[in-house]
Amino acid sequence: MKHVLIINGANLNLLGTREPHIYGAQTLDDVVAHLAQVGAEYGMKISHFQHNGEGEIVSRIHAARGDVDYIIINAGAYTHTSIAIRDALAGVAIPFVEVHISNVHAREAFRHHSYLSDKAVGVIVGLGTYGYEAALRFIALQAGCFKT
Amino acid sequence: MKHVLIINGANLNLLGTREPHIYGAQTLDDVVAHLAQVGAEYGMKISHFQHNGEGEIVSRIHAARGDVDYIIINAGAYTHTSIAIRDALAGVAIPFVEVHISNVHAREAFRHHSYLSDKAVGVIVGLGTYGYEAALRFIALQAGCFKT
Amino acid sequence: MKHVLIINGANLNLLGTREPHIYGAQTLDDVVAHLAQVGAEYGMKISHFQHNGEGEIVSRIHAARGDVDYIIINAGAYTHTSIAIRDALAGVAIPFVEVHISNVHAREAFRHHSYLSDKAVGVIVGLGTYGYEAALRFIALQAGCFKT
Amino acid sequence: MKHVLIINGANLNLLGTREPHIYGAQTLDDVVAHLAQVGAEYGMKISHFQHNGEGEIVSRIHAARGDVDYIIINAGAYTHTSIAIRDALAGVAIPFVEVHISNVHAREAFRHHSYLSDKAVGVIVGLGTYGYEAALRFIALQAGCFKT
Amino acid sequence: MKHVLIINGANLNLLGTREPHIYGAQTLDDVVAHLAQVGAEYGMKISHFQHNGEGEIVSRIHAARGDVDYIIINAGAYTHTSIAIRDALAGVAIPFVEVHISNVHAREAFRHHSYLSDKAVGVIVGLGTYGYEAALRFIALQAGCFKT
Amino acid sequence: MKHVLIINGANLNLLGTREPHIYGAQTLDDVVAHLAQVGAEYGMKISHFQHNGEGEIVSRIHAARGDVDYIIINAGAYTHTSIAIRDALAGVAIPFVEVHISNVHAREAFRHHSYLSDKAVGVIVGLGTYGYEAALRFIALQAGCFKT
Amino acid sequence: MKHVLIINGANLNLLGTREPHIYGAQTLDDVVAHLAQVGAEYGMKISHFQHNGEGEIVSRIHAARGDVDYIIINAGAYTHTSIAIRDALAGVAIPFVEVHISNVHAREAFRHHSYLSDKAVGVIVGLGTYGYEAALRFIALQAGCFKT
Amino acid sequence: MKHVLIINGANLNLLGTREPHIYGAQTLDDVVAHLAQVGAEYGMKISHFQHNGEGEIVSRIHAARGDVDYIIINAGAYTHTSIAIRDALAGVAIPFVEVHISNVHAREAFRHHSYLSDKAVGVIVGLGTYGYEAALRFIALQAGCFKT
Amino acid sequence: MKHVLIINGANLNLLGTREPHIYGAQTLDDVVAHLAQVGAEYGMKISHFQHNGEGEIVSRIHAARGDVDYIIINAGAYTHTSIAIRDALAGVAIPFVEVHISNVHAREAFRHHSYLSDKAVGVIVGLGTYGYEAALRFIALQAGCFKT
Amino acid sequence: MKHVLIINGANLNLLGTREPHIYGAQTLDDVVAHLAQVGAEYGMKISHFQHNGEGEIVSRIHAARGDVDYIIINAGAYTHTSIAIRDALAGVAIPFVEVHISNVHAREAFRHHSYLSDKAVGVIVGLGTYGYEAALRFIALQAGCFKT
Amino acid sequence: MKHVLIINGANLNLLGTREPHIYGAQTLDDVVAHLAQVGAEYGMKISHFQHNGEGEIVSRIHAARGDVDYIIINAGAYTHTSIAIRDALAGVAIPFVEVHISNVHAREAFRHHSYLSDKAVGVIVGLGTYGYEAALRFIALQAGCFKT
Amino acid sequence: MKHVLIINGANLNLLGTREPHIYGAQTLDDVVAHLAQVGAEYGMKISHFQHNGEGEIVSRIHAARGDVDYIIINAGAYTHTSIAIRDALAGVAIPFVEVHISNVHAREAFRHHSYLSDKAVGVIVGLGTYGYEAALRFIALQAGCFKT
Repeated sequence: MKHVLIINGANLNLLGTREPHIYGAQTLDDVVAHLAQVGAEYGMKISHFQHNGEGEIVSRIHAARGDVDYIIINAGAYTHTSIAIRDALAGVAIPFVEVHISNVHAREAFRHHSYLSDKAVGVIVGLGTYGYEAALRFIALQAGCFKT
Repeated sequence: MKHVLIINGANLNLLGTREPHIYGAQTLDDVVAHLAQVGAEYGMKISHFQHNGEGEIVSRIHAARGDVDYIIINAGAYTHTSIAIRDALAGVAIPFVEVHISNVHAREAFRHHSYLSDKAVGVIVGLGTYGYEAALRFIALQAGCFKT
Repeated sequence: MKHVLIINGANLNLLGTREPHIYGAQTLDDVVAHLAQVGAEYGMKISHFQHNGEGEIVSRIHAARGDVDYIIINAGAYTHTSIAIRDALAGVAIPFVEVHISNVHAREAFRHHSYLSDKAVGVIVGLGTYGYEAALRFIALQAGCFKT
Repeated sequence: MKHVLIINGANLNLLGTREPHIYGAQTLDDVVAHLAQVGAEYGMKISHFQHNGEGEIVSRIHAARGDVDYIIINAGAYTHTSIAIRDALAGVAIPFVEVHISNVHAREAFRHHSYLSDKAVGVIVGLGTYGYEAALRFIALQAGCFKT
Repeated sequence: MKHVLIINGANLNLLGTREPHIYGAQTLDDVVAHLAQVGAEYGMKISHFQHNGEGEIVSRIHAARGDVDYIIINAGAYTHTSIAIRDALAGVAIPFVEVHISNVHAREAFRHHSYLSDKAVGVIVGLGTYGYEAALRFIALQAGCFKT
Repeated sequence: MKHVLIINGANLNLLGTREPHIYGAQTLDDVVAHLAQVGAEYGMKISHFQHNGEGEIVSRIHAARGDVDYIIINAGAYTHTSIAIRDALAGVAIPFVEVHISNVHAREAFRHHSYLSDKAVGVIVGLGTYGYEAALRFIALQAGCFKT
Repeated sequence: MKHVLIINGANLNLLGTREPHIYGAQTLDDVVAHLAQVGAEYGMKISHFQHNGEGEIVSRIHAARGDVDYIIINAGAYTHTSIAIRDALAGVAIPFVEVHISNVHAREAFRHHSYLSDKAVGVIVGLGTYGYEAALRFIALQAGCFKT
Repeated sequence: MKHVLIINGANLNLLGTREPHIYGAQTLDDVVAHLAQVGAEYGMKISHFQHNGEGEIVSRIHAARGDVDYIIINAGAYTHTSIAIRDALAGVAIPFVEVHISNVHAREAFRHHSYLSDKAVGVIVGLGTYGYEAALRFIALQAGCFKT
Repeated sequence: MKHVLIINGANLNLLGTREPHIYGAQTLDDVVAHLAQVGAEYGMKISHFQHNGEGEIVSRIHAARGDVDYIIINAGAYTHTSIAIRDALAGVAIPFVEVHISNVHAREAFRHHSYLSDKAVGVIVGLGTYGYEAALRFIALQAGCFKT
Repeated sequence: MKHVLIINGANLNLLGTREPHIYGAQTLDDVVAHLAQVGAEYGMKISHFQHNGEGEIVSRIHAARGDVDYIIINAGAYTHTSIAIRDALAGVAIPFVEVHISNVHAREAFRHHSYLSDKAVGVIVGLGTYGYEAALRFIALQAGCFKT
Repeated sequence: MKHVLIINGANLNLLGTREPHIYGAQTLDDVVAHLAQVGAEYGMKISHFQHNGEGEIVSRIHAARGDVDYIIINAGAYTHTSIAIRDALAGVAIPFVEVHISNVHAREAFRHHSYLSDKAVGVIVGLGTYGYEAALRFIALQAGCFKT
Repeated sequence: MKHVLIINGANLNLLGTREPHIYGAQTLDDVVAHLAQVGAEYGMKISHFQHNGEGEIVSRIHAARGDVDYIIINAGAYTHTSIAIRDALAGVAIPFVEVHISNVHAREAFRHHSYLSDKAVGVIVGLGTYGYEAALRFIALQAGCFKT
């Protein structure tokens, strides 16, 4: 059974309450519940981890070694500042898809660069919370998981 | 009935034959056939246009006004050089999703900037030809098209 | 009899219908008809060419050699990306005035640079479609054409 | 009766005597006299102010509030260095057209940027002293002044 | 009763002991005690939080929603590196004043840029620990709190 | 008796009338009157000088030598362009506080750099006209002036 | 029999008539005729294609697959702006030599960068139309074609 | 007895398991054990601290004041992003040597800059885990510790 | 009789009193008196003009036309910010030598660029007030003035 | 009889032994012998000079005045760092062709700029040692030397 | 028996006499004598070469082929300017360690970049002359030389 | 008796023969003879050294220690590329004046930066060979040498 870990970084716990014109009205719990359902369709196990701390995200990625097959990560602001998370992902060598809820290319210039993208399998931005679902379905396809 | 236009720019006619380690083995016809099928699931009409010329793509976008509801565009190399295509998309004001088959962030630096992204609803890169499908399913969701 | 060729580049065929808060409500046909009238006042012949393709504009400029005395060009997006049009204008050595309907300096940074300006006699931006007329009256003055 | 103020900045008092291959042979008095005549055609009042000092130009712009309807400004070298003049124009909120006699884009790189252009209605460069006249005729059009 | 939260970031716990020629001799406890006194003058409640961790500061800002009316923040080194704190402040939408004890503009170039300033109401630098007091008195003024 | 000179640069004479959404509704006279009152509380003499000219500000700073103990300066646009004012302040070696009414960090990029800040004791931005008062109270503290 | 395709981009049809002090007096027909003769010496087939359009050049390169052994390309202005031509050349994987008639390094700065050079086998600039011949003779050497 | 604190930053807990072609096969425990042995040779006390969190490293450095004589630090990814760790090291004023196991100059461009190097006594890169030992022996020399 | 005009810009009236470790202890009057004496040796007339205002210096340069043969200018801070003075010097076409008392290359980076140098005959920096004398003796040599 | 001097700079004495995947297997002696033979075909005298020192190459170029008609230079690493060699070539005013054996545009970024190219007649890169021969045949053509 | 060549570049002959606050008081002879002794401990042969000339260093590196097993190089100023030395080291393919006596990262910006570092095995900076010894001991370790 | 060493770098041996429109018609021997004469006036000993090699100039500067009181250096092209010469001058700590015959600020951009200027006492450019004389007379003044 394939195991997919979803990681959300700084401030994503505010989802659904913070700047809804940018991030939409769904809470993070709503999103995770929906993804678990989608994962179940394909017989995949879904875990979730959200933290506002860079070090804690690094450590969670380490803990995924030998246990997790794919990572879907929305590192939030750390996308643009954290080489440590980049190194953790490269260190554990688990394939990952990078997701951003809003269209980062239409926002401040410092959000146009990501320390993760060139190490990712792929990147999805601006599709709202559907981005996570698209990443998950792509992983199912890659992993040869069929709808049950 | 929603109408989705898929536009592929320069060199994408080579799909499946050019640099398969980067772009995969499916031909453009394979991809379009599959997308037509997915569109049919949602009761959406799918059109396709591929051209190696910048001006022809501009003109095709113009022709979409009043006829097309969403555009999925992989402008290929023109992504990085064409303000004309950007202006055409902004001019007709049809919402669009930008797709790249390969992970442009892991390639040459000049592929990291897109003239389209900040005008797009969202961007999907590196998911292979599945990126088009994800864009299409997202549009179905946005447009309130349900699986038939 | 002096011959003035007016060239409009990519997307200018949308004039009057695209982003009217930026470009105004006159269509390109309206503008050309008015310019023909102004040209007639001075006994000048006015031709017009609009195309969305860079190569076609290059070829039209070539064809102007030995036939056209002045060019008024609004290359649209190609202003900022086309060295080929610059080279064509320099190659045929016909004096030209560069016109932009909107104030490009108040828009995106990539619109602040033009590949044509340093080769132009002069540049008019932001005066709406009157910019073409001002260019034409300037040319009449330069060419010693008097109102008939 | 519409009132148009023409402002000329540093060194423009030398017009007609300084570097005539760049700026032409007309003196500033010649130019102003001609513009007064053109203004009269449309029933517009024309005032003129030339100064070599940045602060004096700022103060003249302040004094225009409630008295002047449009400004035509050739700030000379201050175009490229004066945020104070930019702020004065924005502060009094009088619409203005920026004029340069020579083609600044064909000269030193530091003349390619203007602190005024993005606040201007439009910009005319390289048409010699006719640039002022074109600006004036454009203003007449904008202001709905008809030839008397 | 208005509630003002004072946040101090990395290394500010060393205040009064670290590089006193730059930061002065008052300890953080001294500063907070004084601010509590000033707050009391205006009938305002003062809370304080210092942490060396970026994630913990983010979480403290989240916790302030619905409880705190204004934030005074000296993020220390995170000023220059943390988009996460910027996003947290924007996410909770509590107005804040940015304070720096030393004159950051007279130090290393990387201290000249702040990720917080453009989101702040205002910024005070170089006034020593009086900067916190000035921010507090400004907030009292803004909030309509009068000396009791 | 300590003497504090307040200097306001280009366009600040428009205060209260120019762009009130940015600069507020108080006039410069209102501000100066209030500062004189605050200064009086501490037994400090307050002088004021406003000019739109860079050279005049330089000369006023020179004249302050041997007469003025502290300067509060809002150089307006000259903040970003005048090395001459920087040199004058360094030349007379009178400690000064730099003030900006609006938050310059939230405006155009060219307003993010100041030629004065690294020579200032401190900088206050975005606190409206209260910024002058905060500077004055800081100076009183520094100078050991107590409320009378 | 080895087949060498010579491609000339925008404006090269003007050869011999445009700016002869830069490009010489030979027409493109003269050059091609001479190259055909040189090719014949080595028993190589020479084809030629000139177009002012970027898309047409891309398509011509595609058509060369399976038919052409080497390409000699002078893309003219597209050298500096076309990623599409670069991608086409990389896509068909036909070895090519890049030629420029004039010394691009002694001209405008934007001509110093080529999107083709790092994908080329080699680059020849400034040798006039002899550059094509040198490229051809090099190819003959590479391909093991001996003079007949 | 001299006390040397060895600090390892983010991801260094993976040592010996992560990307062994870059970092070698020794685990962090192996390295620390060896360094304790080398320290013992010189009669020096060796402590070790590894953490993935920036704030925790800052706090550990604070705790070293008055207790530790030298620091050897390999901050991992934080080398390139953390001003907070820089400030902590400068704040406690304990001399330190910066170590990197791999040759950071032969890796991504963002690893070429360190926020620590200009504050360090010295820097050792690319000598594998021997770099720590070399740093320790240098410190022994500096501190006048002789082999026992 | 040759006429040499010496122009000193902003803050140079402070000479001998301002930052003597940078500018020396001689006053401007001392310097001018000495230069008058040196000029007299060669039978040259020496005039002097100092002003803190940019516009006044521009006007003084204009007034020099037809009256002055050479200019020695130390524009002070305006060296680095004034295109207006550059244009005035180019406009009157009087040959000039640029002088700086201190070594501007050993000071702040913004003092390394001069708007005057490329238009000057030559530049002398860092020789203290002797720089003016050297410029004067060079001019005498150029002008064919012999010691009387 | 025309005299062509071939100059090879630093490290080219290693040709044939150093990094053969980049530079090929021919030694420098092989290359020079072949060029002498080609020169003889046209009745041209060929000299050769290789040195690892910049100053020695400068002096060799000086010595060529009045003796050498053309230079073919591969300055190796000095191409990218030596203004002295550029000045020497410009000083003696002997026309030269710049040659690089490998394709410098496909190597490190610092090899993309040459201090010689804009002063050269032409540049040949990436054609292996055939580049020298092509340069020589071009010179023969230029010099009107016919095969004997 | 392993052979280690130590190379010192420009100005290092001044060691012990030049700027001792930066480089220490040991002469180069002292250093070399000490290194010979350390080398002897491990049964390694130590050679030394110092030269102020770039070309001579290049030639010395060439001569090391087939004779020297490791190089320790402190290229002095050439570190920052010499591609020729970089190419020589890459050409002979002898592994080398780069050493700098002072902490180059704490000095002028132009000393922060090295043309050698990315080709080196490792780099040691700021450890004074001990840096050479550390390099030597590292090499002994790498080469499997044990203390005799 | 004061000893002044004049150093001339690469290509200055061509003086009087190379590009006379830039460098004048005097030979280096003429210049040195004249300077010896001027030195004699003040009772100063004049030595001269010219070399095209960077290393040789470095070594000559070293040899000047303890023997030479002042250096006048025109390093030619090495001005812009040699950190080694900068270090040599700083190493021997002999005060020096930098001279350039032509106005380097009016030439290529790469000649606008000097590695020597910020270490020099002063810099003289564009005064032709008189620049050396002015430097010498300045040194006499500094050294307290009076005309004999």
